[in-house]
Amino acid sequence: MSTNRIDVAALGQQLLGDYAEIRTASRARAARPELQRDPALGMDEHRERVLEQLKILVEEQAVQRAFPKTYGGHDDHGGSLAAFEELVAADPSLQIKAGVQWGLFAGAILHLGTEEHHAKWLPDAMDLTVPGAFAMTEIGHGSDVAAVATTATYDKDTEEFVIHTPFRAAWKEFLGNAGLHGTAATVFAQLITNGVNHGVHCFYVPIRDENGQFLPGVGGEDDGLKGGLNGIDNGRLHFDHVRVPRTNLLNRYGDVAADGSYSSPIASPGRRFFTMLGTLVQGRVSLDGAATNASKIALQIAVSYANQRRQFTSVSETEETTLLDYQRHQRRLLPRLARTYAASFAHDGLLEKFDAVFSGRADSDDDRQDLETLAAALKPLSTWDALDTLQESREACGGSGFIAKNRFTQLYQDLDVYVTFEGDNNVLLQLVGKRLLTDYASGFRKLDTGAMAMYVAKQVGTAALHRSGLRSVVQSVVDVSDERKSANYFKDSQNQRELLTGRINALVAEVAGNLRAAGKDKVKTAQAFNENQDTLIAAARTHGELLRFEAFTEALERVSDETTREVLTWLRDVFVLCVIEQDLGWYLANGWLSMQRARTLPEYINRLLARLRPHAQDLVDAFGYTQDHLRADISSGIEAERQEEAMAYFAALRASDQAPISEKSLLKKTKAAATA
Amino acid sequence: MSTNRIDVAALGQQLLGDYAEIRTASRARAARPELQRDPALGMDEHRERVLEQLKILVEEQAVQRAFPKTYGGHDDHGGSLAAFEELVAADPSLQIKAGVQWGLFAGAILHLGTEEHHAKWLPDAMDLTVPGAFAMTEIGHGSDVAAVATTATYDKDTEEFVIHTPFRAAWKEFLGNAGLHGTAATVFAQLITNGVNHGVHCFYVPIRDENGQFLPGVGGEDDGLKGGLNGIDNGRLHFDHVRVPRTNLLNRYGDVAADGSYSSPIASPGRRFFTMLGTLVQGRVSLDGAATNASKIALQIAVSYANQRRQFTSVSETEETTLLDYQRHQRRLLPRLARTYAASFAHDGLLEKFDAVFSGRADSDDDRQDLETLAAALKPLSTWDALDTLQESREACGGSGFIAKNRFTQLYQDLDVYVTFEGDNNVLLQLVGKRLLTDYASGFRKLDTGAMAMYVAKQVGTAALHRSGLRSVVQSVVDVSDERKSANYFKDSQNQRELLTGRINALVAEVAGNLRAAGKDKVKTAQAFNENQDTLIAAARTHGELLRFEAFTEALERVSDETTREVLTWLRDVFVLCVIEQDLGWYLANGWLSMQRARTLPEYINRLLARLRPHAQDLVDAFGYTQDHLRADISSGIEAERQEEAMAYFAALRASDQAPISEKSLLKKTKAAATA
Repeated sequence: MSTNRIDVAALGQQLLGDYAEIRTASRARAARPELQRDPALGMDEHRERVLEQLKILVEEQAVQRAFPKTYGGHDDHGGSLAAFEELVAADPSLQIKAGVQWGLFAGAILHLGTEEHHAKWLPDAMDLTVPGAFAMTEIGHGSDVAAVATTATYDKDTEEFVIHTPFRAAWKEFLGNAGLHGTAATVFAQLITNGVNHGVHCFYVPIRDENGQFLPGVGGEDDGLKGGLNGIDNGRLHFDHVRVPRTNLLNRYGDVAADGSYSSPIASPGRRFFTMLGTLVQGRVSLDGAATNASKIALQIAVSYANQRRQFTSVSETEETTLLDYQRHQRRLLPRLARTYAASFAHDGLLEKFDAVFSGRADSDDDRQDLETLAAALKPLSTWDALDTLQESREACGGSGFIAKNRFTQLYQDLDVYVTFEGDNNVLLQLVGKRLLTDYASGFRKLDTGAMAMYVAKQVGTAALHRSGLRSVVQSVVDVSDERKSANYFKDSQNQRELLTGRINALVAEVAGNLRAAGKDKVKTAQAFNENQDTLIAAARTHGELLRFEAFTEALERVSDETTREVLTWLRDVFVLCVIEQDLGWYLANGWLSMQRARTLPEYINRLLARLRPHAQDLVDAFGYTQDHLRADISSGIEAERQEEAMAYFAALRASDQAPISEKSLLKKTKAAATA
Repeated sequence: MSTNRIDVAALGQQLLGDYAEIRTASRARAARPELQRDPALGMDEHRERVLEQLKILVEEQAVQRAFPKTYGGHDDHGGSLAAFEELVAADPSLQIKAGVQWGLFAGAILHLGTEEHHAKWLPDAMDLTVPGAFAMTEIGHGSDVAAVATTATYDKDTEEFVIHTPFRAAWKEFLGNAGLHGTAATVFAQLITNGVNHGVHCFYVPIRDENGQFLPGVGGEDDGLKGGLNGIDNGRLHFDHVRVPRTNLLNRYGDVAADGSYSSPIASPGRRFFTMLGTLVQGRVSLDGAATNASKIALQIAVSYANQRRQFTSVSETEETTLLDYQRHQRRLLPRLARTYAASFAHDGLLEKFDAVFSGRADSDDDRQDLETLAAALKPLSTWDALDTLQESREACGGSGFIAKNRFTQLYQDLDVYVTFEGDNNVLLQLVGKRLLTDYASGFRKLDTGAMAMYVAKQVGTAALHRSGLRSVVQSVVDVSDERKSANYFKDSQNQRELLTGRINALVAEVAGNLRAAGKDKVKTAQAFNENQDTLIAAARTHGELLRFEAFTEALERVSDETTREVLTWLRDVFVLCVIEQDLGWYLANGWLSMQRARTLPEYINRLLARLRPHAQDLVDAFGYTQDHLRADISSGIEAERQEEAMAYFAALRASDQAPISEKSLLKKTKAAATA
């Protein structure tokens, strides 16, 4: 066991990343009771509370940094998301309702509208005079936005667009602010003018009057109770030939002149569509950060409890074993801790890239595409991981984990929808997979190297070598003499990287080969694509893990304290080796690892966990949340107090002559006496 | 694609199992709105509603079958649990509150008390005159029941027991009925008489008066809001020298005479303790059934939706692809469907075993131990699987899955605690692992063969052969000529069984070897045990899967319709091959599978899924739940209606001359015209 302690303060600062000050200020806000969730409130009261909380955010200019200076913002895109992400510690409903208002609704005006729109609508959106809904998703189309069926048909006689819902599946659905508070919406619809459908565009549409009544032609329904996030009034909207002025088209990427003629700075309808959607990537970026924060909170609570809680005597007769000393408990919590560190460092890179693109520092088409691929790779992993971490943490705290005041279940319930909104995780990973395929097909495999080093090109030829098993036979010969050689192999970060990149390349090559074999026939290609969908998504997943690995590895270089770097290196190793362990079958079946070497992996991971165990508390304390953020009864120190009280009671009892003897001991004594 | 359909009615009947009539009657009850959850209710109203619902269950004698005929029951233990398990479809809170009252509280009186206690307390417990808490768990001790710290000290002067809570960690915790409704409790405490602690015994203790006020010396707290199951008033209790008559000791397994002398029909304090706890195994048995029912409900909703919902065009230009036609969607839902079938058949075996023991038909010590091992192996798997299935189903339905009225999230929230109560899943699996170790050590590896065929003994020697890799080299030679040979290998149920049993034996042998190496030193042994904890739990998990495999395989023999048997065989294969796929790394690293063979496994599973896909709806329909049970908006057929409406709209539009041309098509035409 290392007796040196890591430098918690320095590590904490590093974890706060580029926007440390902004994050710290936002965390201070999240620590204030009036901005937090009151678990006792029912849905209706919770919704009203969150609306009032948004007003506090307005007063304090808490999450307005992304807007132009002209309108009181800071033109600070990265900083805005950093502040926003930290609100999850107060209440995910507050975070997401803020995201709906300023990220989505006002964000659409900012990014899809032009100067006139900014002047006309941004101020009211920014100060919440107009709470707005972001009406993109329809009941019938979530992930496939290009296929939304709401129409906006231009009527040149009146110079108006007619917004219309042709059938029930085209109702706008799951929109925050639509259930109750929204008085306007940015509505995505097929723009039709002069008999041509120019694809999906966004329109500013007032939906309610000052009394909260729907305007003529507008209708809707409240989505009612949800699995979580019940501080937000999600709802449905539909439109019956609702007319808005021509100038309500947010026309940055496509405009209609008074005579009905269409024009766009982007000639290709496909590229135009993706450019418009691309401006909304901030949702995905911020969910990646918020989800990682939720994982941190869960682990800080669960590890603290596991360090205080005792159960069952094993070594000592009188002292029960601390939970975190059990191997199984280490296996449950510490790999998730390692993964959360990886996710945190990867998120910093994503946020840096996001800010570079949105500030205009580096916003080429390639940059934008790279940003989207990064976000599409990381958001699924971190949101799924948050649910997994929250659930495992809750279980690791037993029945106490299930009590609402211990936070896990409510965070889980709120975070649940993060895995399917702002891009369904499976659909996002498929996008990443397609990008990997495209890069593969074009023989061009760079991807961004600014924010994170990435994706080292590999010879396709090596796959054949691996498959033949020659490589693993060589490994066996090398390893057989000394088991430490296997450990040396696994702890070498070049080997770790090679395993990840090798798997990605091999899976992508496999899918590409199968698609090529399908030829040019459209039906056959579609079928082949479907038959390789699971493999492609597996490649995308590993790609996301590689991004995290690179970010973690790079972060190690920035650690100056030696003990801290050593401990974090173990943590990085646990992270990446657990990723490899999950796909161990693949690595073996394809000759990347010998049987010999593979057999040592679980044991080596267990040894690393035992080494990390004494540092676990420091590692979660470095996340920097205080009890005002954690707010769990069991993270307050109460468990340690109870354990000490119990131990003191028994110690006093043993010291007295009042202690009853156990029947078991008595039987032993009687037996011994009989034998003597 | 098979054009034959399976026999849904016959399969449905088989799935209902031995207690088909009782289950059907209980399901009819669960279909009645007055017994169902009203999602709009807050915690307080929900608690009152569930209490009223319990009274309906009393009136209708719905779940009283386990009690003696003398008191109006049927002495029908298996039937009682079958009826009870089906209540989960109405509201898990109703199920669990019924379980607290009649399974735990009245169950303790029945199983731990004697005739006098039955006569005195059973009638009031059965008809809910006395709602009762089951006060076993303490804040400081959940899984380690033997270490509870509440004391019951006999005072021979007054012939009373003094029930006392010595410190805060000894407060009784998480007790249903303790928060509000309970007027008595069965309290577990260390029985101390004449200076000797005879270990944990159970006492009947009144806790509240007729006005709901705590009796003198009794105190407590309401646990308040929980992650789910909020229809139950969980709470804490503590006792300050509360006196109860000597005869309030439930004295079936241990008694104290007026003079304070202790007697028990079971000489060994350890065996006595486990015998007392063993009478409460019904909780675990019934959770296994209820959790499997929840999985069925989730899958019936999600598969129905996936068969109606369409998203993205792939093959056809105009018709979108049905979700369940996507490989990834099949991978998400169908292995879980297969696993749920396996769990359902395994539960039938468990229930049969339970009934045999509790009816006295076969209740030797060995039978009881086997029952406990079965329950400890199956309950963890089915409760974890229920959460996993509910979550994947919810995600597979996208945003709609998150809306409360679509059931998934509320069932998830309620079922969450099933994985840690009535025995924490990890602790239970460790118990199973210890049993496997004991059997291994005694060279005696039979386990029950009545309810399910099980655990075929293997030569330990084969492990060495496997490890050397010789076996896998032979496989490679055999398989290399023909990939179908690999498929033949995987679909042979003897091979499937051998892979499962082989893994269990090898893991147990590994742990046993490591423990032996630690010698007789207590500290070293404890350390070695801890260092092998994860492996032992892995063995227990696979043992549980083996039990399911055997039950599924046996169930196939009972299917008379040929198509049904063929389809169910594919389903069994998917179940067991997915279990093997999860541990593929282990099988390869230890020489059980060749690289060649292992590489074909994922693809072979995918082919099976494609074969099952046309039968998916029939397979979930066979679960037999109606919309009154499913109660999800999206399982009502509304999605199909919406899809048809949308398709009809576009078909009519295309047929008319009103359809706008897409800009993309226009560009193509213009280009073509320019080239021509």
